[in-house]
Amino acid sequence: MFVHKIDEELELKLIGLEDVEELYELADRSRDHLGTWLPWIEHTKSEADTKDFIKSAMKRYGEANGMVVCIVFKGEIAGTIDLHELDWNNKKTSIGYWMGERFKGQGLLTRSCKALFTYAFRELNLNRIEIRADVRNTKSRAVPERLGFVNEGTIRAAAMLYDEPSDHVVYGMLAGEWHDDKD
Amino acid sequence: MFVHKIDEELELKLIGLEDVEELYELADRSRDHLGTWLPWIEHTKSEADTKDFIKSAMKRYGEANGMVVCIVFKGEIAGTIDLHELDWNNKKTSIGYWMGERFKGQGLLTRSCKALFTYAFRELNLNRIEIRADVRNTKSRAVPERLGFVNEGTIRAAAMLYDEPSDHVVYGMLAGEWHDDKD
Amino acid sequence: MFVHKIDEELELKLIGLEDVEELYELADRSRDHLGTWLPWIEHTKSEADTKDFIKSAMKRYGEANGMVVCIVFKGEIAGTIDLHELDWNNKKTSIGYWMGERFKGQGLLTRSCKALFTYAFRELNLNRIEIRADVRNTKSRAVPERLGFVNEGTIRAAAMLYDEPSDHVVYGMLAGEWHDDKD
Amino acid sequence: MFVHKIDEELELKLIGLEDVEELYELADRSRDHLGTWLPWIEHTKSEADTKDFIKSAMKRYGEANGMVVCIVFKGEIAGTIDLHELDWNNKKTSIGYWMGERFKGQGLLTRSCKALFTYAFRELNLNRIEIRADVRNTKSRAVPERLGFVNEGTIRAAAMLYDEPSDHVVYGMLAGEWHDDKD
Amino acid sequence: MFVHKIDEELELKLIGLEDVEELYELADRSRDHLGTWLPWIEHTKSEADTKDFIKSAMKRYGEANGMVVCIVFKGEIAGTIDLHELDWNNKKTSIGYWMGERFKGQGLLTRSCKALFTYAFRELNLNRIEIRADVRNTKSRAVPERLGFVNEGTIRAAAMLYDEPSDHVVYGMLAGEWHDDKD
Amino acid sequence: MFVHKIDEELELKLIGLEDVEELYELADRSRDHLGTWLPWIEHTKSEADTKDFIKSAMKRYGEANGMVVCIVFKGEIAGTIDLHELDWNNKKTSIGYWMGERFKGQGLLTRSCKALFTYAFRELNLNRIEIRADVRNTKSRAVPERLGFVNEGTIRAAAMLYDEPSDHVVYGMLAGEWHDDKD
Repeated sequence: MFVHKIDEELELKLIGLEDVEELYELADRSRDHLGTWLPWIEHTKSEADTKDFIKSAMKRYGEANGMVVCIVFKGEIAGTIDLHELDWNNKKTSIGYWMGERFKGQGLLTRSCKALFTYAFRELNLNRIEIRADVRNTKSRAVPERLGFVNEGTIRAAAMLYDEPSDHVVYGMLAGEWHDDKD
Repeated sequence: MFVHKIDEELELKLIGLEDVEELYELADRSRDHLGTWLPWIEHTKSEADTKDFIKSAMKRYGEANGMVVCIVFKGEIAGTIDLHELDWNNKKTSIGYWMGERFKGQGLLTRSCKALFTYAFRELNLNRIEIRADVRNTKSRAVPERLGFVNEGTIRAAAMLYDEPSDHVVYGMLAGEWHDDKD
Repeated sequence: MFVHKIDEELELKLIGLEDVEELYELADRSRDHLGTWLPWIEHTKSEADTKDFIKSAMKRYGEANGMVVCIVFKGEIAGTIDLHELDWNNKKTSIGYWMGERFKGQGLLTRSCKALFTYAFRELNLNRIEIRADVRNTKSRAVPERLGFVNEGTIRAAAMLYDEPSDHVVYGMLAGEWHDDKD
Repeated sequence: MFVHKIDEELELKLIGLEDVEELYELADRSRDHLGTWLPWIEHTKSEADTKDFIKSAMKRYGEANGMVVCIVFKGEIAGTIDLHELDWNNKKTSIGYWMGERFKGQGLLTRSCKALFTYAFRELNLNRIEIRADVRNTKSRAVPERLGFVNEGTIRAAAMLYDEPSDHVVYGMLAGEWHDDKD
Repeated sequence: MFVHKIDEELELKLIGLEDVEELYELADRSRDHLGTWLPWIEHTKSEADTKDFIKSAMKRYGEANGMVVCIVFKGEIAGTIDLHELDWNNKKTSIGYWMGERFKGQGLLTRSCKALFTYAFRELNLNRIEIRADVRNTKSRAVPERLGFVNEGTIRAAAMLYDEPSDHVVYGMLAGEWHDDKD
Repeated sequence: MFVHKIDEELELKLIGLEDVEELYELADRSRDHLGTWLPWIEHTKSEADTKDFIKSAMKRYGEANGMVVCIVFKGEIAGTIDLHELDWNNKKTSIGYWMGERFKGQGLLTRSCKALFTYAFRELNLNRIEIRADVRNTKSRAVPERLGFVNEGTIRAAAMLYDEPSDHVVYGMLAGEWHDDKD
């Protein structure tokens, strides 16, 4: 298995077709908790939908235009982190993530993001990582805040969420600001 | 000619292959003035480059994924405005523009933007228009400020400009805030 | 709105996605009258079909390989004119058109064609416009005849129409013959 | 070799990559004679150009959208006949041809066309074959006239030939009119 | 018809859309006999499936990447031979075939293969022809054995056949070994 | 870094754009030693060629149709292993590999293959792995022989190598025969 080991119990794994079943089940069990902010869960009705997502994630990776990793905790998939776009010209990417319900509250996502961001700054040589979250989504906003990202502003009506405009807080971190060993 | 008439001397015209020569000449004469903030001018070395740009603009229009209009003043092309992306799901677009040097200082760009934005809000039914400019580019920033856009924040290192990070101010205008007759 | 204004009550408008609803309704109400010579009406069963047609028309426009305009009379879509193909090498195009039933008999189509042909000869610099019609379709043939096109011959069995061969009269107009102010 | 045998000395052969060398040489030796009416000869500067042509011909055949055959006389390629387009909906095709200079004046092209048209009407079940020729190209016009095609009219400025408009006579033959054994 | 004539009663014909009906019927009548080794027969449920196959075969031919011929015996299609792949770099191809049930036992396939292989070695200038068959498929193996191919080995689990691994015997013939007149 | 750790000094790494420079240098220094059996080295003239190769490898990975890993020894790239094709229907793949000259003779390739094959059988659930080598290439043949692969036969003239036919020994290993802990 091709992984980025974080510590004895936590590692990041490039998403692949072997993850379809486990990932679908994780999402399926977390529908209520995910649905508030992630409308894609409504369109994820069977393993076939998860398979389509993984194929598109692999395709983006194959074009050096994205990367999705599974957060693997004690051998189980706990969630995913998505580098939505790899903008090599401007040396930046933006990040999305979600965790299965039963894996929340243990800091797994923050530890995983820390490791992945170090990889993105140090190995991919990116200069900027951006995280956006609905202004009301306090749990999602907690991740960049805990990691020292700068709140750069609020993009109003940045997206439509269930037919209502959603305002997005933009958090940014630059390579020069990142401390690899930060806690 | 398919145009959106603004007043007796000013109109917007969908870009087309018939504009290659005039547009190249306009850009060619404005190299110094454009080059500071618009790196594409360096790659525009002949009419063939302008033709490629127009073809790609027409292709985006044909896919309902963008729109480039020429600002036509007293029958001459004075500049262009570009709807970079038409995000129908989120009902938004972002805008770029440039003016030929000898057409600056007469308010043509602001009047043209006003007309185009009314079209975008009222006929395309968009909900948000975004304008981004380098934080140091005061002339470009003046357009959204004059039109009452909200300064929503500053995205640091949003782009690389001649190998240096460029910070972008983000201005936003929502459909509900727009006054069609505003001056 | 991007239009080519003909007079106070008549204008041509580049077709766009905003026209789906109105255009479908126009065609839907004119089924009997259109069906004799235009088999596509049978395959236009819902707005989705009209949307597909408009998308393909926009795509052709985006490739500089065609152009569909709506005839707009007093603010309502009255019909369409289609430049089927833009053959830039040979500087020619061929034309198709249809009118909604309640807009017929007022000369709108002829006036619209006149304006569009002037645009095609003078701005697109085409050298030849061709109109073909089934030899029995006297109403369709009346348009080129009224505008002074030359009857160049009859192509036998040029198309299959509801499984029967259809003979096409070919009318041609050359740039040098066209009088912009002709009535 | 996959051929359609006409008689002891004449056969038609589906064009293939094995014909590159011989076909290029035939065209190369007939430059003067071909150039008047066939501008492609100017762009055929080496075997690579002939190879590209054959590849595109094979691709059209593979899409059931055309067919190019070599006229083979006593084992040598004497010319080609091209079914430019196979319009299955309208059951028609149009034909082009050329002969190498030293194979002219023996009736080979007419005999070959006769065999190919019988194939097109009887085996491909087409209903119409069209041949177009510049009105001044008497040698090319002689073929359909000898075979009893109907002169259906003259399309003015149907093409640009070396930057001058070329008028095309259109000849048509329908399945019901064709006599397989005609001489 | 474009054919490769073998003798008075047998010829090879490039597959085409005109063969859909006859080929489907031949396969349909031979289901039991074909199904043991050729799983595609299960997915051939109507003429539409045969048409799709023929289209894909024509497309491969158009790309110079394969060739399917019908074995025509006394005017009837008796089976097909498929050059699966034309590997021009390595000058080789591999062959598959099937016969309709009522045409078996007369040596038609062997005679047809002989003619086609001579064509492949002498006209296409290939250097190697490969035939693979399930180790238990004695009838299929009889063809290369009768024609003097060398048994080069057995690839274990080379394919899954109805969810069971199938071992393939590989037979090879090189250009230098082939006797055109061999019986 | 996304890796498959084998032991303290050896790991497999999915190939990526970050490997261009190091991989080109490794190949460049091993030209003489690689060239005998691997003609691609002649076409690898600059980092741009290596970049193209890596892009195509990533694209195949993105389509679940292949996988290239770097063998990383004490932090340095020592060679690559390529799963040329992932045939999911038939549950098999074939393998290629090469080592930089200064990393040979230490068993690194064999240990790496062992780890990768266990991954392919146990995690990708493949049923067959195939290795082919020129019959004269004793060093390459040593790998499958050391790992207990079965010599299944010799495909004559399986490829053209510098314009001469090359015979390939085929080695196969099935999932049921593989011992994960084998040495």
